[in-house]
Amino acid sequence: MSSISRRNFVKMSVAGAGMLALSGLDTQAALNQKEVKFDEEFDVVIVGSGFAGLAAAISAAKRGKNVLVVEKMGRVGGNSVINGGQIAVHNNDLQKRDGIKDSKELFVKDILSAGKVNHPSLVNVLVDRDMDTFKFAIENGAKFSDKLYFAGGHSVARSYHTENESGSGIIQPFANVIKDMPNAQIRTRTKFDKFIIDESGKIIGVAIRENYKFDAKLFHDDTQNLEGDKKFIKVKNGVILASGGFSNDKIFRQVQNPAIVPTTDSTNHPGSSAGAMIEGFKLGAMPILVGQILYSHVKCPDEKGNGIGSPFASGCFTYGMSVNAKTGKRYVNELASRRIVSEAMFNVIGSDENYPIHIMDSDGAAMLKDGVLERTMQSGIVKKFDTLEALAKNYKIEVQPFLNEVERYNSFVKSGKDDDFKKPIEITKDITITKPPFYAMRGTPKLHSTMGGLTINEKAQVLGFDNKPIDGLYAAGEVTGGVWGLSRLGNIGTLSCLAFGMIAGENI
Amino acid sequence: MSSISRRNFVKMSVAGAGMLALSGLDTQAALNQKEVKFDEEFDVVIVGSGFAGLAAAISAAKRGKNVLVVEKMGRVGGNSVINGGQIAVHNNDLQKRDGIKDSKELFVKDILSAGKVNHPSLVNVLVDRDMDTFKFAIENGAKFSDKLYFAGGHSVARSYHTENESGSGIIQPFANVIKDMPNAQIRTRTKFDKFIIDESGKIIGVAIRENYKFDAKLFHDDTQNLEGDKKFIKVKNGVILASGGFSNDKIFRQVQNPAIVPTTDSTNHPGSSAGAMIEGFKLGAMPILVGQILYSHVKCPDEKGNGIGSPFASGCFTYGMSVNAKTGKRYVNELASRRIVSEAMFNVIGSDENYPIHIMDSDGAAMLKDGVLERTMQSGIVKKFDTLEALAKNYKIEVQPFLNEVERYNSFVKSGKDDDFKKPIEITKDITITKPPFYAMRGTPKLHSTMGGLTINEKAQVLGFDNKPIDGLYAAGEVTGGVWGLSRLGNIGTLSCLAFGMIAGENI
Repeated sequence: MSSISRRNFVKMSVAGAGMLALSGLDTQAALNQKEVKFDEEFDVVIVGSGFAGLAAAISAAKRGKNVLVVEKMGRVGGNSVINGGQIAVHNNDLQKRDGIKDSKELFVKDILSAGKVNHPSLVNVLVDRDMDTFKFAIENGAKFSDKLYFAGGHSVARSYHTENESGSGIIQPFANVIKDMPNAQIRTRTKFDKFIIDESGKIIGVAIRENYKFDAKLFHDDTQNLEGDKKFIKVKNGVILASGGFSNDKIFRQVQNPAIVPTTDSTNHPGSSAGAMIEGFKLGAMPILVGQILYSHVKCPDEKGNGIGSPFASGCFTYGMSVNAKTGKRYVNELASRRIVSEAMFNVIGSDENYPIHIMDSDGAAMLKDGVLERTMQSGIVKKFDTLEALAKNYKIEVQPFLNEVERYNSFVKSGKDDDFKKPIEITKDITITKPPFYAMRGTPKLHSTMGGLTINEKAQVLGFDNKPIDGLYAAGEVTGGVWGLSRLGNIGTLSCLAFGMIAGENI
Repeated sequence: MSSISRRNFVKMSVAGAGMLALSGLDTQAALNQKEVKFDEEFDVVIVGSGFAGLAAAISAAKRGKNVLVVEKMGRVGGNSVINGGQIAVHNNDLQKRDGIKDSKELFVKDILSAGKVNHPSLVNVLVDRDMDTFKFAIENGAKFSDKLYFAGGHSVARSYHTENESGSGIIQPFANVIKDMPNAQIRTRTKFDKFIIDESGKIIGVAIRENYKFDAKLFHDDTQNLEGDKKFIKVKNGVILASGGFSNDKIFRQVQNPAIVPTTDSTNHPGSSAGAMIEGFKLGAMPILVGQILYSHVKCPDEKGNGIGSPFASGCFTYGMSVNAKTGKRYVNELASRRIVSEAMFNVIGSDENYPIHIMDSDGAAMLKDGVLERTMQSGIVKKFDTLEALAKNYKIEVQPFLNEVERYNSFVKSGKDDDFKKPIEITKDITITKPPFYAMRGTPKLHSTMGGLTINEKAQVLGFDNKPIDGLYAAGEVTGGVWGLSRLGNIGTLSCLAFGMIAGENI
């Protein structure tokens, strides 16, 4: 039953135009029947050129569809091309070679343990199709090394790594495959704006802008950037939204959490915005978990994006401490969950960018992996001090309260009990903050990934409020929610973007 | 800057009708100009008749607006009329009488501690206007007792209680005030369906159905119930959505959390659905925190809605234990947070309604408040057993594993340490599960309140994706998000529904 369906909404929302004939909920508004003047026609339009978008493009094009991929940025690949390039696959050849027992059930369990409210139907499809997806990547030119990786949150080692240890090891060959296809093309600097629908509510096209130029200086790309030449594309089969998350959408992300101020950085490419997802909501797509944002809490505000500071921050959390520069005091159990530490840091940072200071001494620094200290000091994000006083002065921390706090922390390490924040102090291996030189870095959480978005089903069809597919609308990757639940298990990001992109292309 | 604004969306989404003239993003589609045949006209239409809706109606009508309140159910008051009727107000007369020091800052702090991601601007307005709101309630007939209440999560006692200890003590006088107003009316059994907008995107009316009959037997009210007589209402100033949360919307709530199966009960009235909120999203309202649902984890599946079982469940959590009937074993620290216990219970319940069993002995039952045991046994939800064996048999728990688990739990009480789930065992006051008779109740989490919805500003205007108000659209109460953050502080529910309803009525 869906008499009061999305389609009827569409008819009725335009009622100002023609409500005369609208005598009941099932009756169509008498819409103006003039035709759109379309500039071009494709079977399938795909919005976004990351893992999901390119997988969808290849998969649809191999079925003979005439495919256009629109990418608003100047380069192909979105966040995928700056992704680490690891992909989890259960019962894979490396596991067999290394004698590691895995199963569908175990992989599903790991995913659900992280995500908690994942849609089981989507997780099932993901795990059922993981090997297909991996083979699809290889068939289309991706190359993986022969080392098996054990990623956090997984019960067993089950991840491959691309040969070049980057998502570009998948994006680049995919883009080359598409370049060689007569019936598929990618247009960069081309922005999706709006859906065009007919009077029955079916998507019949999209409004786009070519020669678009992303402008990082604008506050809000989707509502302020007017660049480009308008074009209307007729679409025969439908549209696949693969436009990614909204980690750099300064409006939408701060509505979800006011602690995310405009200066808060993310690990994403600068164009990660909510625009395309929002057009989906307007079309009647059901929003899911839109407020759920994953942070990386080991980042540094003195470098852009992902950066290289994470291992140093993690080192301080284990073998040192983090203080509020204004008070000189600790503010959290540095080893609490990513969410709790991020929240505490946001409180410290406030609206005046009072970034916490992460600190360790030479014994702590000796625990870092080779090269970490050298690289981070060379880049300038980590600084070395002969005395704690010098460290405090550099970061404008009041000296005496800070020295007292270091003393207090050291006493916790010695007594084996953190009376202030219950950090599991045994993990510090008795390393206090005593031995010069001392090392420090400013810290911050950065937005890493957005868990919510458009609701999809097992065929990557976008669902309307009646839980039924919206005709002609598909989505895959970070613009969707449900596969990942509240928190995405590591190394299933790449897998799920590729898998649901491929699936969207198979079904559209 | 909002050239690609909601208005343009509206124009463009109807592009199938008239894209010919659409030569650019700023250009209007040439829509059919035929007029809607409106049946009636009001200045303001309000959807929903709970605290927010009625406060809005009185506030707008006192400004001379001609107001229609539509209420789909057969009675006025939504969830508000079954609400407990407590309202928090800082620096109130009872606090002064009792010598309790309070402040705006303290109230704000309490609200933010619970909600974490509340919009500070909304919380400020709420607390600035709490006394106005309270006086507004009294001016319009609400009566409060002269006892000051101390509610959980508040730093000081600051709550009033209605004389009849129910939200009906506010709803009923408000409805009477409206009845006496020449320029305001409430129509029950009247369902809001859709917005009607003109070609500029402005709301010019609503499609409603009179003589609607809510049918509790239908799976999904908003998409399956076709009852009623269609009518088109012209609206001069705008629409205020005060339609409440979606705790009984079997589609929307399960999309957010698949553990919420159709048989999961809520404490809400049966008509609490997402329909009106969804029409807001389609119109371009920004969704906020839609996945955030508050559960009450002390409920009983053997009674409808709120029920009377909560104090018994809480008693078992403190002085007894809760077991999975299938295994006879405990499954959680019974005193963990509401969210963690709810999650663990949902895992136990699964899809086959395997409700956990809460248990205590006579010593535990002696700790209950007077009357709790009598009332819950009389209603049949709590049962008494002479032996643990009889208890196990009644709930189809395998006897021996269950007896072992009771033994194990008792040993934790004696040793002062819960080796299995780290329940803070000192709170049990050495009460084991030993002394017959034994008491038990089946337990379940029920949905209590939905934290997310439409994004609003300080004037209760609904915000579009450009963070600007949607012309003519206001919202208040549980259909909105932002005031409450992730978790609503107790006793600010009533306050915020009344306050933002009143504010919407002042501004529309």
